[in-house]
Amino acid sequence: MERIPILKIGDVLLVSIQIDLQDRDVLALQEDLSEQICDTGARGVVIDISAVDIVDSFIGRMFATIASTSRLFDATTVVVGMRPAVAITLVELGLTLGNVRTALNLEKGLAILRQIGGTRSDVLGRADDDQPVDR
Amino acid sequence: MERIPILKIGDVLLVSIQIDLQDRDVLALQEDLSEQICDTGARGVVIDISAVDIVDSFIGRMFATIASTSRLFDATTVVVGMRPAVAITLVELGLTLGNVRTALNLEKGLAILRQIGGTRSDVLGRADDDQPVDR
Repeated sequence: MERIPILKIGDVLLVSIQIDLQDRDVLALQEDLSEQICDTGARGVVIDISAVDIVDSFIGRMFATIASTSRLFDATTVVVGMRPAVAITLVELGLTLGNVRTALNLEKGLAILRQIGGTRSDVLGRADDDQPVDR
Repeated sequence: MERIPILKIGDVLLVSIQIDLQDRDVLALQEDLSEQICDTGARGVVIDISAVDIVDSFIGRMFATIASTSRLFDATTVVVGMRPAVAITLVELGLTLGNVRTALNLEKGLAILRQIGGTRSDVLGRADDDQPVDR
């Protein structure tokens, strides 16, 4: 099947997940993302899951794995657009997503990455503490 | 099936097409996009088709229709990431895409929207030329 496209905006890579992920899709995405981070020198990865309405433990762990891998390339991962039902499922599965940052939507995710800038912390807090970008 | 998610970055709406579009998907997308432009006051629409490897005349006309509709809401549409094979097919089908603007990739598409004006450059900064944004 087709690989999930990875879009580039400045030094941020954007992945919009729109399909029911199979395990092999997840593995392919991890691989593609690592390569893209290396090739582009991206400092941030945003994974939009607003179209995802079902998760299982494998998918849940994917986010943590991608975030951990990205961090080895000095890039921060933010998962955005999580639906309430997905959040509930993740908690019920006992998946806290580890060090993965989350944000309500893409804009807030990009704002987090901007705020982190070059002084990214390994102690990653919650997204909703961040100031929205109001102009 | 699931609707194609529409992401918002500043006053630009971003659609990443990753599935083989059926006619009803296209119609749903047109409807959703129009509503989102109205709701958000977006000034630009970027449709990424880097994952699309097959087009037919219906899909080809979709871009022109979306662009025309968006223009009625004062928003500019840019189609980005077209594969060479898709471009060749469109020409062979006699579809010139009318007034639809195209760009090689998402960053160049965002740059076009910035050039045209109306979009907030602070949100879309660092997109095309890796110029740091002063803060």
